[in-house]
Amino acid sequence: MSYNLLKGKKGIIFGALDEKSIAWITAIKCFEEGAQIVLTNAPVAMRMGEINKLAEKVNAPVIPCDVSNAEDVDNLITKAMEHFGGGFDFILHSIGMSVNVRKGKHYTEIDYGFNLKTLEISSMSLHRVLATCMKKDAINDWGSVVALTYIAAQRVFPDYNEMADAKSLLESVARSFGYHYGVKKQVRINTISQSPTRTTAGSGVKGFDGFISYAEKMSPLGNASAEDCANYCVVMFSDMTKMVTMQNLFHDGGFSFTGVTQAVITQMEK
Amino acid sequence: MSYNLLKGKKGIIFGALDEKSIAWITAIKCFEEGAQIVLTNAPVAMRMGEINKLAEKVNAPVIPCDVSNAEDVDNLITKAMEHFGGGFDFILHSIGMSVNVRKGKHYTEIDYGFNLKTLEISSMSLHRVLATCMKKDAINDWGSVVALTYIAAQRVFPDYNEMADAKSLLESVARSFGYHYGVKKQVRINTISQSPTRTTAGSGVKGFDGFISYAEKMSPLGNASAEDCANYCVVMFSDMTKMVTMQNLFHDGGFSFTGVTQAVITQMEK
Amino acid sequence: MSYNLLKGKKGIIFGALDEKSIAWITAIKCFEEGAQIVLTNAPVAMRMGEINKLAEKVNAPVIPCDVSNAEDVDNLITKAMEHFGGGFDFILHSIGMSVNVRKGKHYTEIDYGFNLKTLEISSMSLHRVLATCMKKDAINDWGSVVALTYIAAQRVFPDYNEMADAKSLLESVARSFGYHYGVKKQVRINTISQSPTRTTAGSGVKGFDGFISYAEKMSPLGNASAEDCANYCVVMFSDMTKMVTMQNLFHDGGFSFTGVTQAVITQMEK
Amino acid sequence: MSYNLLKGKKGIIFGALDEKSIAWITAIKCFEEGAQIVLTNAPVAMRMGEINKLAEKVNAPVIPCDVSNAEDVDNLITKAMEHFGGGFDFILHSIGMSVNVRKGKHYTEIDYGFNLKTLEISSMSLHRVLATCMKKDAINDWGSVVALTYIAAQRVFPDYNEMADAKSLLESVARSFGYHYGVKKQVRINTISQSPTRTTAGSGVKGFDGFISYAEKMSPLGNASAEDCANYCVVMFSDMTKMVTMQNLFHDGGFSFTGVTQAVITQMEK
Repeated sequence: MSYNLLKGKKGIIFGALDEKSIAWITAIKCFEEGAQIVLTNAPVAMRMGEINKLAEKVNAPVIPCDVSNAEDVDNLITKAMEHFGGGFDFILHSIGMSVNVRKGKHYTEIDYGFNLKTLEISSMSLHRVLATCMKKDAINDWGSVVALTYIAAQRVFPDYNEMADAKSLLESVARSFGYHYGVKKQVRINTISQSPTRTTAGSGVKGFDGFISYAEKMSPLGNASAEDCANYCVVMFSDMTKMVTMQNLFHDGGFSFTGVTQAVITQMEK
Repeated sequence: MSYNLLKGKKGIIFGALDEKSIAWITAIKCFEEGAQIVLTNAPVAMRMGEINKLAEKVNAPVIPCDVSNAEDVDNLITKAMEHFGGGFDFILHSIGMSVNVRKGKHYTEIDYGFNLKTLEISSMSLHRVLATCMKKDAINDWGSVVALTYIAAQRVFPDYNEMADAKSLLESVARSFGYHYGVKKQVRINTISQSPTRTTAGSGVKGFDGFISYAEKMSPLGNASAEDCANYCVVMFSDMTKMVTMQNLFHDGGFSFTGVTQAVITQMEK
Repeated sequence: MSYNLLKGKKGIIFGALDEKSIAWITAIKCFEEGAQIVLTNAPVAMRMGEINKLAEKVNAPVIPCDVSNAEDVDNLITKAMEHFGGGFDFILHSIGMSVNVRKGKHYTEIDYGFNLKTLEISSMSLHRVLATCMKKDAINDWGSVVALTYIAAQRVFPDYNEMADAKSLLESVARSFGYHYGVKKQVRINTISQSPTRTTAGSGVKGFDGFISYAEKMSPLGNASAEDCANYCVVMFSDMTKMVTMQNLFHDGGFSFTGVTQAVITQMEK
Repeated sequence: MSYNLLKGKKGIIFGALDEKSIAWITAIKCFEEGAQIVLTNAPVAMRMGEINKLAEKVNAPVIPCDVSNAEDVDNLITKAMEHFGGGFDFILHSIGMSVNVRKGKHYTEIDYGFNLKTLEISSMSLHRVLATCMKKDAINDWGSVVALTYIAAQRVFPDYNEMADAKSLLESVARSFGYHYGVKKQVRINTISQSPTRTTAGSGVKGFDGFISYAEKMSPLGNASAEDCANYCVVMFSDMTKMVTMQNLFHDGGFSFTGVTQAVITQMEK
């Protein structure tokens, strides 16, 4: 079912690895809602993933981009503008990578060189993309940018490790840049704080299964799926939400404002 | 322009006084998006307003209801279900009234009898409506309830007076009931925290003009209009936001996360 | 051990029922830190409790006061000023009562008459006390007011029932009045959001035991005790925290910013 | 006036540049309250400042430390433990530096190499210090760590530039490490979010004067001074606040929860 919510809109989607990815499903939804898409991902992720299958489905070019590389980002925006014949209307930032997590480092023993890499890729990449867009005047008036985040930015989930700090930084960048891009071009920038989702990336996190079932029990509506998240991204890209900016929007079945549920209490009493 | 976002959906809209009302404009948008509507307001407000004009436009019955009266609320839900031929899908709660503000009482000198009336009408009315719906199983699975609120619930705006406390209470009721209705029937309940809006109700507040221009200067996108708010209500009622519940959603052009703007600093230096 | 943090200060303490009460222990700490005290409680609570034992220990008069009664509050402030020979410096508001909880009503089926009584006693009582103090110029410059609250004001704990809404309202009153009393007399008003505490009042809540052990497992430092809370009240009354106002201060061993702990995950996997 | 609140306690204070510094004044207060101190600062800051004058006053050794250098941090903690004859009880982290601000870069045009340096010095330094302490078991049970921050971490103040993002990251590190150090050794970690303060560091920020007067007008109690902040640090280091951890504590005369004041509205109407 589709509503034509994005008819005539154009956008760039970062981070579609495989068909479980939120970015993948969002690309499909955006396409179904009438948008034209450019896909991008890190060269290394593209080798592992199947982005070309997606590209065919949504009739989109794929432009590789290492978001920590200035030339790559510049090239991406330039090529996207060439493809679209001018500016575009939305961006989905679905990028996160922690070297320390991959290496199995405990949060209290992280390597600081790895950490800076994590922050550069997972957080400051949003700044770099937006700064490049602003310089090239690439985003149309009232354009909309969404970055995916997680509630570990507000409260500690120990296994989420340094990604919690990276997400806090990401949300701050969204607010800060949201101010400047809002004042200058009415571009709005928000983060969506999504339920833990069984993507290929998410599955790598230690203790993920125990955690996802805890989140399910702690959410009055249960965990939000990747498809639900894609729908929420679509409405944030649409003209129906034009005055929402600089917000962190929880999309989590109520997890964020639930202190405890009966289901958890029952389990605790066992 | 319409998307059919609410095709097949049915809902009750509280609080449409005249054509400046957010509820009025939301009723029209919901109708344009394919919804069937029941309108309601307090008997006294109906005498002052022009709700029948709206009723004609959106082809809706009008059922008077004093939300502090149990029988009235019961009657409203019963009649609405008769009209719809069963359950319905959404509710807009746009109700607020402060006797102390009307009487010109300063916040530090309010009358406590008046205050309880304010809380009953402006806040606990949401509880009463929801409790009545739950008892009658009136809201369909995955239904959506939105109540309008204001950021004075989080930060002090002195002239907003006791309505700030009423809005805090309202937001708490939305969360609390959101938990229970979510667990029971997947009904989601959120509040939208809207920019100050030049409605007939809003205009009554002392110092409103100075304040609305301050908010305009403090919002990177400017103040959100009533029409923008109506759009946001529509997406919250739609199936595109199914996993959002128990949230307070700022719809304010970025005001809520702006500490200061250049425009305000410039004015302060005069 | 004592520091003389409240040497020369005078204050009123509401809500000391018996020796488990936070208010009881705070009264003793304040006395040990050099303060002069006036004790008060509802007439009905005084009959059940043992406040006279406390009064002897801290050398304080006991003035009964039903906080929903204007004359009682007026009498309390008048008598306290007579006793102190003028204004005083601090107030502890430790008052909460829910008729619906007592009657075993589920949150979705509360009685609205009882609810207004709950709000009047548990929340608006803070307003009434402060308004009376302001009218009589009873609180000295830079005086400090603390009201005890609970995190259910922010997130849902289902068994906490309507008290969650009452605490939200209480915190809003603290902010709102904090603004006005701050501007007028530099009086500061804060709430302390305390861990669940095994007081006589707390024990009445359904499922309290399961809940207190969940909170213990979810707090990196464990639950804060009543004695710890009393210490925190003392520092908030002291001159060491003069610029803290309109805040809600979590005193909970880290519970409020912990999303999950290893201890809870382990229990969930059982 | 002193209370002996820190009698027998030992701590390290980072960031005392000159007598206007919050860290400087805090060192003096801690000393007066009975603590033993070790002072440290970046070698470059030590050349510019007058830390030796302070060292004499508070009878403390000065150990230079570049917080982005692992060996320096290791050396600092080792030397401090030698000086104290074992573990210590508190740390004040008052460190912030933005190369982009110094170079006059606009937020939307920052250099990313400089930015990583900013994050490393201003935010990740807290992690490095804490990780080193944990490895060496340097902080005693129930020790207390405070890092100074600013409300730009929550809301945008445009001239605060990339330091806003750095402070968000800092606060996240405080929470994350607060969890782990709390579970392991009951060490508590908090941030104090201080009013804008006329220190030598603060004065460098563009538009600082206009801004500090706006903050003064927007705070019911006015801006908190460096001396007030030092007092608040002392209570956070003391045993009176043992169960407070992972919090961001606003110390700002009420600024954080004030939406607008009459003083600002009046100015806006000019």
